[in-house]
Amino acid sequence: MQEKHFSHSDILNLEQRFRAAFINSITGFKSLCLIGTKDNVGQTNLAVFSSLVHLGSHPPYFGFIVRPDSVDRHTLENILNTKYYTINHVNERFYQKAHQTAARYPKTISEFEAVGLNEAYLDDFFAPYVEESTIKVGAEFRERVDIALNQTILIIGEIQHVYFPEIAIASDGFLDLEKAGTITCNGLDSYHKTQKIARLSYAKPDKAPQIIH
Amino acid sequence: MQEKHFSHSDILNLEQRFRAAFINSITGFKSLCLIGTKDNVGQTNLAVFSSLVHLGSHPPYFGFIVRPDSVDRHTLENILNTKYYTINHVNERFYQKAHQTAARYPKTISEFEAVGLNEAYLDDFFAPYVEESTIKVGAEFRERVDIALNQTILIIGEIQHVYFPEIAIASDGFLDLEKAGTITCNGLDSYHKTQKIARLSYAKPDKAPQIIH
Repeated sequence: MQEKHFSHSDILNLEQRFRAAFINSITGFKSLCLIGTKDNVGQTNLAVFSSLVHLGSHPPYFGFIVRPDSVDRHTLENILNTKYYTINHVNERFYQKAHQTAARYPKTISEFEAVGLNEAYLDDFFAPYVEESTIKVGAEFRERVDIALNQTILIIGEIQHVYFPEIAIASDGFLDLEKAGTITCNGLDSYHKTQKIARLSYAKPDKAPQIIH
Repeated sequence: MQEKHFSHSDILNLEQRFRAAFINSITGFKSLCLIGTKDNVGQTNLAVFSSLVHLGSHPPYFGFIVRPDSVDRHTLENILNTKYYTINHVNERFYQKAHQTAARYPKTISEFEAVGLNEAYLDDFFAPYVEESTIKVGAEFRERVDIALNQTILIIGEIQHVYFPEIAIASDGFLDLEKAGTITCNGLDSYHKTQKIARLSYAKPDKAPQIIH
């Protein structure tokens, strides 16, 4: 394959939208989820995110990034005000609706209704889940980390509930996202199904990894 | 599909390795890369990471997470001491070698040599790239963010160089990772190829997204 190179100054000189598409691609395939929230007067909000990151298993923490110029400020406001939110995996059946939640709807319009996804309330949890999602996570806000460098914000939450298809969990706790139909994304707008290559055994210095069947 | 539910207390009561496998799966498909570093006496290090996150395009910032109990402390030490590191996308041809870098090799052993991947030095950049990787990024350290909640660390870097296959870039800057052979992972040990569903046009409130051909 013919190789191309962009230096730092090449990147700074790219046209703005070209650069955004390019730089958003180079961090690799990303998780894709819808974050569901509700404000104190019952108005719901739903927004697509691709920056979920695992922070720990015990306690079960994860984070996601809010951009300074983002429409997802409604999500941030609701989380800071009410403390609860949901993470809903996206699958092929509704990925176009998930994408559409990124449009700049006014705060008075719920993206659930605007894009045609259904709210689900489970086990008296405050925030709405996406009924169509096969993996749903209820989270409670734990910490806000402001990144001074470029005014992004890392929001950290603790997992309170997980709903998942029984067929997707293996005997060792591995949750097979492919069996649940979860998809991934590349850059700002490219959606991808997956095809498993293999699971590999725990890496040890003195032996090659084995495929887990 | 039959649905299963784990509450917060269910999660806390899971056996430790089961919980780690489960919680590492629920944040969705993850980016997968090898981070290459070198210490001040020329000893190289290579470690697999699945926590890359986009932080901004202008300047081009990204972050990744270092766990407190991680073998990847060698990576952290080298980055803090030398300021430079490389991000190398993983593809199907060498994913087993990438996985094997997670084994606890002593600091005196280079994972490049231990697993059989080749160091490449490009444009006088200090840190080693992985020759076998089709997308290579050279980064300079910018900020360390300590997350007090659980002693994880967010390392933020700025992109200095990107090398990629010319066939993978679209006219609008989108970099097609699938064309470059980049793969993704699920949880701690499951590796997946991708199959594109579609790219969608920029979301606007008054119209449905269109497929980009």
